Amino acid sequence: LTEFSPVPLTIEGSCVLHQLFEFDWKAWRGASAQDRQHVTEEATDLFRGLGIAGEKSSPEGSALYSLLGHKGDLMMIHFRNSFEDLNSLEMKLAKTSLYGFLKAKFSYLSIVELSLYESSAKTYAALAGNGVQQHTPEWNEVIHEILERQREAMAQRLHPSIPPAKYLCFYPMNRKREGKQNWYALPLGERQRLMHDHGMIGRRYADRVRQVISGSIGVDDWEWAVDLFADDPLVFKQLIYEMRFDEASSLYADFGPFYVGIRLNPEDFPEWLAVDSAEKM
Amino acid sequence: LTEFSPVPLTIEGSCVLHQLFEFDWKAWRGASAQDRQHVTEEATDLFRGLGIAGEKSSPEGSALYSLLGHKGDLMMIHFRNSFEDLNSLEMKLAKTSLYGFLKAKFSYLSIVELSLYESSAKTYAALAGNGVQQHTPEWNEVIHEILERQREAMAQRLHPSIPPAKYLCFYPMNRKREGKQNWYALPLGERQRLMHDHGMIGRRYADRVRQVISGSIGVDDWEWAVDLFADDPLVFKQLIYEMRFDEASSLYADFGPFYVGIRLNPEDFPEWLAVDSAEKM
Amino acid sequence: LTEFSPVPLTIEGSCVLHQLFEFDWKAWRGASAQDRQHVTEEATDLFRGLGIAGEKSSPEGSALYSLLGHKGDLMMIHFRNSFEDLNSLEMKLAKTSLYGFLKAKFSYLSIVELSLYESSAKTYAALAGNGVQQHTPEWNEVIHEILERQREAMAQRLHPSIPPAKYLCFYPMNRKREGKQNWYALPLGERQRLMHDHGMIGRRYADRVRQVISGSIGVDDWEWAVDLFADDPLVFKQLIYEMRFDEASSLYADFGPFYVGIRLNPEDFPEWLAVDSAEKM
Amino acid sequence: LTEFSPVPLTIEGSCVLHQLFEFDWKAWRGASAQDRQHVTEEATDLFRGLGIAGEKSSPEGSALYSLLGHKGDLMMIHFRNSFEDLNSLEMKLAKTSLYGFLKAKFSYLSIVELSLYESSAKTYAALAGNGVQQHTPEWNEVIHEILERQREAMAQRLHPSIPPAKYLCFYPMNRKREGKQNWYALPLGERQRLMHDHGMIGRRYADRVRQVISGSIGVDDWEWAVDLFADDPLVFKQLIYEMRFDEASSLYADFGPFYVGIRLNPEDFPEWLAVDSAEKM
Amino acid sequence: LTEFSPVPLTIEGSCVLHQLFEFDWKAWRGASAQDRQHVTEEATDLFRGLGIAGEKSSPEGSALYSLLGHKGDLMMIHFRNSFEDLNSLEMKLAKTSLYGFLKAKFSYLSIVELSLYESSAKTYAALAGNGVQQHTPEWNEVIHEILERQREAMAQRLHPSIPPAKYLCFYPMNRKREGKQNWYALPLGERQRLMHDHGMIGRRYADRVRQVISGSIGVDDWEWAVDLFADDPLVFKQLIYEMRFDEASSLYADFGPFYVGIRLNPEDFPEWLAVDSAEKM
Repeated sequence: LTEFSPVPLTIEGSCVLHQLFEFDWKAWRGASAQDRQHVTEEATDLFRGLGIAGEKSSPEGSALYSLLGHKGDLMMIHFRNSFEDLNSLEMKLAKTSLYGFLKAKFSYLSIVELSLYESSAKTYAALAGNGVQQHTPEWNEVIHEILERQREAMAQRLHPSIPPAKYLCFYPMNRKREGKQNWYALPLGERQRLMHDHGMIGRRYADRVRQVISGSIGVDDWEWAVDLFADDPLVFKQLIYEMRFDEASSLYADFGPFYVGIRLNPEDFPEWLAVDSAEKM
Repeated sequence: LTEFSPVPLTIEGSCVLHQLFEFDWKAWRGASAQDRQHVTEEATDLFRGLGIAGEKSSPEGSALYSLLGHKGDLMMIHFRNSFEDLNSLEMKLAKTSLYGFLKAKFSYLSIVELSLYESSAKTYAALAGNGVQQHTPEWNEVIHEILERQREAMAQRLHPSIPPAKYLCFYPMNRKREGKQNWYALPLGERQRLMHDHGMIGRRYADRVRQVISGSIGVDDWEWAVDLFADDPLVFKQLIYEMRFDEASSLYADFGPFYVGIRLNPEDFPEWLAVDSAEKM
Repeated sequence: LTEFSPVPLTIEGSCVLHQLFEFDWKAWRGASAQDRQHVTEEATDLFRGLGIAGEKSSPEGSALYSLLGHKGDLMMIHFRNSFEDLNSLEMKLAKTSLYGFLKAKFSYLSIVELSLYESSAKTYAALAGNGVQQHTPEWNEVIHEILERQREAMAQRLHPSIPPAKYLCFYPMNRKREGKQNWYALPLGERQRLMHDHGMIGRRYADRVRQVISGSIGVDDWEWAVDLFADDPLVFKQLIYEMRFDEASSLYADFGPFYVGIRLNPEDFPEWLAVDSAEKM
Repeated sequence: LTEFSPVPLTIEGSCVLHQLFEFDWKAWRGASAQDRQHVTEEATDLFRGLGIAGEKSSPEGSALYSLLGHKGDLMMIHFRNSFEDLNSLEMKLAKTSLYGFLKAKFSYLSIVELSLYESSAKTYAALAGNGVQQHTPEWNEVIHEILERQREAMAQRLHPSIPPAKYLCFYPMNRKREGKQNWYALPLGERQRLMHDHGMIGRRYADRVRQVISGSIGVDDWEWAVDLFADDPLVFKQLIYEMRFDEASSLYADFGPFYVGIRLNPEDFPEWLAVDSAEKM
Repeated sequence: LTEFSPVPLTIEGSCVLHQLFEFDWKAWRGASAQDRQHVTEEATDLFRGLGIAGEKSSPEGSALYSLLGHKGDLMMIHFRNSFEDLNSLEMKLAKTSLYGFLKAKFSYLSIVELSLYESSAKTYAALAGNGVQQHTPEWNEVIHEILERQREAMAQRLHPSIPPAKYLCFYPMNRKREGKQNWYALPLGERQRLMHDHGMIGRRYADRVRQVISGSIGVDDWEWAVDLFADDPLVFKQLIYEMRFDEASSLYADFGPFYVGIRLNPEDFPEWLAVDSAEKM
């Protein structure tokens, strides 16, 4: 290959938006019982409409979480077929009465992706072996075919339904580009090896945690978003701690903020919002 | 050349201002239907006046985008002939009734530019070959002539009309100056080679994405602004991911925040603003 | 061991939430004496209910501190059996009248942990000596047994009661992963040696300060939280200063913000809140 | 010289304060026409009193600029004889009715300075040649005399009148102290050479831009402030871009935020403030 | 010595709190003349009670400064015997009517300290020479005696009265721990040499500036706080500029924000607060 450092073949699926909000409890307590009831009903309807609740197990779903800590009170995650659908959903929420009590604290835009490191290494080697130059029509055709085939084979992982797990751990991350620790300057084979070893750890946790990786290079401020779904949040700590010692993370990972939420079904939302009217001051 | 590291010949065109705003949906819902109608009409008129809508395809245009995520709700991009025109446009917007619902989240000031690396290398070599000293009147005259010729030849790229593409991806960036990874300490020929290879990737995407580079050294906090216009936002991710592996980006690029917006024509703005009066609480 | 850098055996206990709030003294002074009395009573009841006051010396306790400086006015620390209990406690507080006067400034989510470096080194060596491969059923069984035994033996340290000390010093921290100073790339034996030396300093302060370490990899933005409990705050400075010169801290520690608070019992809280009504303006 | 790295002889002049404000257009539009007129008149009077307008071309002047972008709306620069005069001027402004519409976004405190690198090198060498020890009375006397002579010779540059140029570019900056790129560990002769080459670039722009350097070590958060005054803002970009490739900037400069403003005379301020009363909502 | 890098013997004195506030001039102008008079009187009384004004030249004093720039309007510095006294003083201020016009922008908590580098080097060498092991009872006794003796000898410097100087320069700072520039990994003798040379510069400024160093490791976010008191603020710039070239600062210092204030006596505070009632809008 003539290039500095070859790009791995990558296939993309659903568009993803994370939204994190603070809830204005003071204003909420100050609202009339009637207004609170109206907001609660409108919001519950909206959440059902968004596909929250797991009724629709289609890949175009959303989920709601009660966040731990001061980084926000509510977290939503939305999987859709396009950025346009995500923006229209944002606008729909912004125009509800609930939105008057929400303050956006963070959001994250990304696209579900799978990196085909093994396939890339084999294909690039085969094409080079056959004397096919990069980016020639012949080369492009082979690559196109592989990507199409993989997209079909991986359709379910590219357009995932949201796992019903009780806990969500979400964080964005980068691969380092600092001096000698530059992921993007490593040979493809080296990156393939590191990704393989990294993946082996995940595999040992596969029965306890479901992972969705989405890419955000060019669309948001970190390079990837990671969503982990599990029924026991201790697994988040154990998995990520173990990974920190593998070569890929130890040398090349740069982590953003971590967010942990507890699943909230639309039917539980009225309870989440409920305040004791008698206590109102 | 006697200098530490020669500056590439550079030609400049339109002045550019990006403005990113949060929209106060709570106050908007609280406003009377009459006030909302007034604001909507005034804003739509202003946007038409700013050259938004593509009717005027002159280089002095503006465009409006609905932003994804919490970084803001509306993004405007303005191309004008001077900073004074940009400031007067800012003032005009600040004095509208719409501005009472906007909160500035970010902005970016820059000037469309083209770096003439190939021309620089040839010219500097030729002048040195002829024994012409840098910054002498003779040297200045030759340089001046080249710049003038290029400005004419490149007039359309220096004063671009805003492409009508559905999506805009905007981000500022720097070239690194850290230890051995110092773009500004590289020999001119090395920078020329890196820019050439970098450009080759862009060329392969030319039919799917339009790119405008503007320089902001000395006028804003990063060194360059990049605007990518495309009908499919997946292209942003693919192009920028591929570029991250080229030598220029892998070793020398330092990226700022990324913003993605969906084009909003003035005639669509009333719909964007519309809230259901009956729902108002 | 075939791995890049082995993970130390680690056992976990109570879930921990730190909450730091600013108190809105202006609004408080503006509230009626009646409202202030109501808030004071409701809050005092809540604090007693949360296990604040040391009456319940069970491991599911909370404590309240008056913070020094502008980083906040009140700090709470909560030990519970699950993240769900912590979130439900957060919601309970958010729905009180007191919460209308609080503004969240920071929080920290973590899980009490003990790293078994000595045990890890011995066990890994023994298993390797016996030819037991990592992550095989045989290997897993041995590890599982050790962890269970240690969890029982260390139950009190894993589920600590909050020491009644007058002062609390809380800070989050990371181990560095920068170039050659990469904790996660050190051999296990080297990390064991550094942790041992680091622990020797703590041991000399054991009669003057009680320390609780909780891990937050995967659940909050730093890797660990440290809580020091002492009756003389000078000890915080002396202990941490001395530790800064040990090899583990000098080369590998990266410290977050430091928070110092003075213990506030529920029965002292009314006094803390009391303002002179006559002075109210 | 026995010292680690000798300090260049430096002479100081006027005290400088930059103030950057956001203007609350919403509140302004909401104010009565009468109130707006009162504020406008009071502010215009104040600005004249501050020496804004160029009528007083004394070194104790101030100037007002309309800022580009979201970093603020108004920028003021004040040159005075003491910090006390600057603070009293700040207080005067804070007590006007205009101040109720201003929100401080940034400020910068500094003292006009000239570094006498050539003089330092010569003098230190001569004194060393004569066997005069540093900081002895004899040494001090020689230094004192040189500084006095230079202060007189450079009086105009140390106490500059504000150039009437249409545009101001202001930014703070540091010299790096990172590993091998440590300005403060370079030999004096090396720094002298770098400053000389750096200055040569500025000299070529002397007819198009006026530069004022002020030092802020010990009084604000960066080490220097740079003010560039020009009638064509493109010159800011060209000059600073060219300088970025010189050795002093390429290796040792660390830049803060950049601010660009357009000169606003007191007589233009009413126009800047004017809003269409009929449009008021 | 068997330790990685020995801790210097250190003695501590007064507890210190810096408080920096923005003053809400808009609300102040909006308050009634009667309310302003009440606040002014209450605040002036409080300030006298805090020991502001130099009447009490006891070490338990406070001082008030009018800050330059946008980082705040008022700075207070308090020296007390305990953190508890500092917290009770904070609470007292928070409950005044003045506090309704103050917004906390920054604060800093620290403890006056003296590092006994020379004494440490001699003592450690002598003890080692006598074969006394570190941290044995014999070793502890010798160290304890030295610290006691030094605390008595240095009592005045450990519990300083606030100098009546017109200007205060306050900044926090760290010693670097980055790769080869790691203060905490230097041999004790090397640190002793650097501190000695650093101190020699300060000594030359001793008649123009009074310096108080307080340590904040373990109690606030930087490692030390520096307070410089002088009648001519130019001295701050000259002293700190000169120090930046010494080896200790050039290689190992990492500086926080710098704050400069002008002394405000309680009797001057009413004047500082005075606004022209007739001008009120």
